[in-house]
Amino acid sequence: MALGEFQMIDRLLKPLAAGCPGALGLTDDAALLAQQPGTQLVLAKDAIVEAVHFRKEDPPGTVAQKLLRQNLSDLAAMGAEPVGYLTAFGLRRDLPEGWLEAFVAGLAEDQARFGIHLLGGDTVSTRGPLFFSLTVLGRVPAGAALTRAGAKPGDLVCVSGTLGDSALGLAVLEGRIAAPADSAAYLAGRYRVPEPRLALGQALRGLASACLDVSDGLLGDLGHILATSGSGGELGALVRAGDLPLSPAAATLPGALEAALTGGDDYELLFTLPPRHRDRLAELPVPVAVIGEIRSGGGTEVLDSAGALLTLSGRSWTHF
Amino acid sequence: MALGEFQMIDRLLKPLAAGCPGALGLTDDAALLAQQPGTQLVLAKDAIVEAVHFRKEDPPGTVAQKLLRQNLSDLAAMGAEPVGYLTAFGLRRDLPEGWLEAFVAGLAEDQARFGIHLLGGDTVSTRGPLFFSLTVLGRVPAGAALTRAGAKPGDLVCVSGTLGDSALGLAVLEGRIAAPADSAAYLAGRYRVPEPRLALGQALRGLASACLDVSDGLLGDLGHILATSGSGGELGALVRAGDLPLSPAAATLPGALEAALTGGDDYELLFTLPPRHRDRLAELPVPVAVIGEIRSGGGTEVLDSAGALLTLSGRSWTHF
Repeated sequence: MALGEFQMIDRLLKPLAAGCPGALGLTDDAALLAQQPGTQLVLAKDAIVEAVHFRKEDPPGTVAQKLLRQNLSDLAAMGAEPVGYLTAFGLRRDLPEGWLEAFVAGLAEDQARFGIHLLGGDTVSTRGPLFFSLTVLGRVPAGAALTRAGAKPGDLVCVSGTLGDSALGLAVLEGRIAAPADSAAYLAGRYRVPEPRLALGQALRGLASACLDVSDGLLGDLGHILATSGSGGELGALVRAGDLPLSPAAATLPGALEAALTGGDDYELLFTLPPRHRDRLAELPVPVAVIGEIRSGGGTEVLDSAGALLTLSGRSWTHF
Repeated sequence: MALGEFQMIDRLLKPLAAGCPGALGLTDDAALLAQQPGTQLVLAKDAIVEAVHFRKEDPPGTVAQKLLRQNLSDLAAMGAEPVGYLTAFGLRRDLPEGWLEAFVAGLAEDQARFGIHLLGGDTVSTRGPLFFSLTVLGRVPAGAALTRAGAKPGDLVCVSGTLGDSALGLAVLEGRIAAPADSAAYLAGRYRVPEPRLALGQALRGLASACLDVSDGLLGDLGHILATSGSGGELGALVRAGDLPLSPAAATLPGALEAALTGGDDYELLFTLPPRHRDRLAELPVPVAVIGEIRSGGGTEVLDSAGALLTLSGRSWTHF
């Protein structure tokens, strides 16, 4: 980037910090944030790289929003409220006219939506793929944060929203599967602009025994809960394939079950719930499905509607 | 990076979080940090890119330490104490054997030195230049942070340590200038592993009227103070070239004056001091030179030892 371009970025980014005194108008070396007694700060940081985490053809505004939202989803998984964020941009000189403006406009739109501000960051030049890193800050009442540790045998395995949409959306965008136009648009939207389940995460404080967001895929992420809550294979889980929540758009497509079990990037909350709290599920701000339960040992088993064990054969889940 | 390599990174990074309960052993989506009443949080974020901010030949441990230290220097400039940091690594598959181990060993060494821990982060793959982003967190008593705003006409312009070493060190490493072996080693060390002036920054709380760290170069950074403290060219500064602090290694080299005035990456603190505090300079934990003063308007002027104006001609500062 030429110097003039960096000044342009400066002009683009300063409005994102407006209204937030601690950002100091982005003029200083660091941002200042008041501490709130009785709370803990929650911090998450993600990075994305062009052609790895987003496609050159993706609208720049949605690339920005997905980066911000996947970080907000990390806050949601801890039961935290968002406070602000910092960014680092790695930019090439050959960035198409308007690309960065659209990227920043996506951030501006989501800032307003989630009630947060840019606190600071850095812009650097690269000769390689574009990259972006984002650090998000949130707050949670002291001691109330949800973590991956705490699941117990007998706890219900629950998931918000629907699963597999994002993986199917990517498959549609890449032309690997075909879908009717309205389904394709819905699924691509779920891939590009996931919804961080912030209100749900906050509602789960004091209820869920363990929680995370589905980023690697349901079975992988459930494995993270089992590994962090138990140790040495002490915990296992049963998952009922017939109870996995699928969107109408996903349900009719080939590979929907596989996408729901192992597709990533859904950013739904996967949590475990002591059975005594089952009645509370109806009060939650988003639909939640009970898809299985935690048990002692035995890894994770997936059962079909008749209770028969499904196994992964190549890329499909089938009966033995 | 293959999955096995990411697991290796995981093994390398988890020890950096050991001993810090809020890092949750890096198992969770986010880190938790207790808030301390009566303090403000200070946050800075920088990114570095291979072949732009560091050289392929640089020892990986010092690349890591420079990244951490330039962020710690941002805390120093605000008068803050360091608390912890998050990182994002953008790595290629072809990383030489041992490179990452050495990078992480550099972080481990500096963590111990500065009393901080890794709180979280992200590791992603790239096909382009390596990149690293680091977010550092610090604390400052509420209302006590130093900023770039606050310099007034008559304030002394002060700088810690010595100037120009880093730019000369880079010139030596790149073979652009020659220096005796011991000078070359000293200057290269100043370029590769700068010293964040944390104790000085904390000592300047309540004393300095404005402060930042010299990263762009003395004159550019002084310009940042003038622009943030004044508005519309309201403030200017006089700088006495003969009072610029030069290391013995730098003083004998060609271009030392230019490096001191415009070389970046020194990470010394540049601050303004109301003249009534002049006596306090002797109490500070590092040597500080008074190099000029703030005045009303007139931009920044550089004077030689006889009081004659120096001007930039090509790449040299000379008399008219």
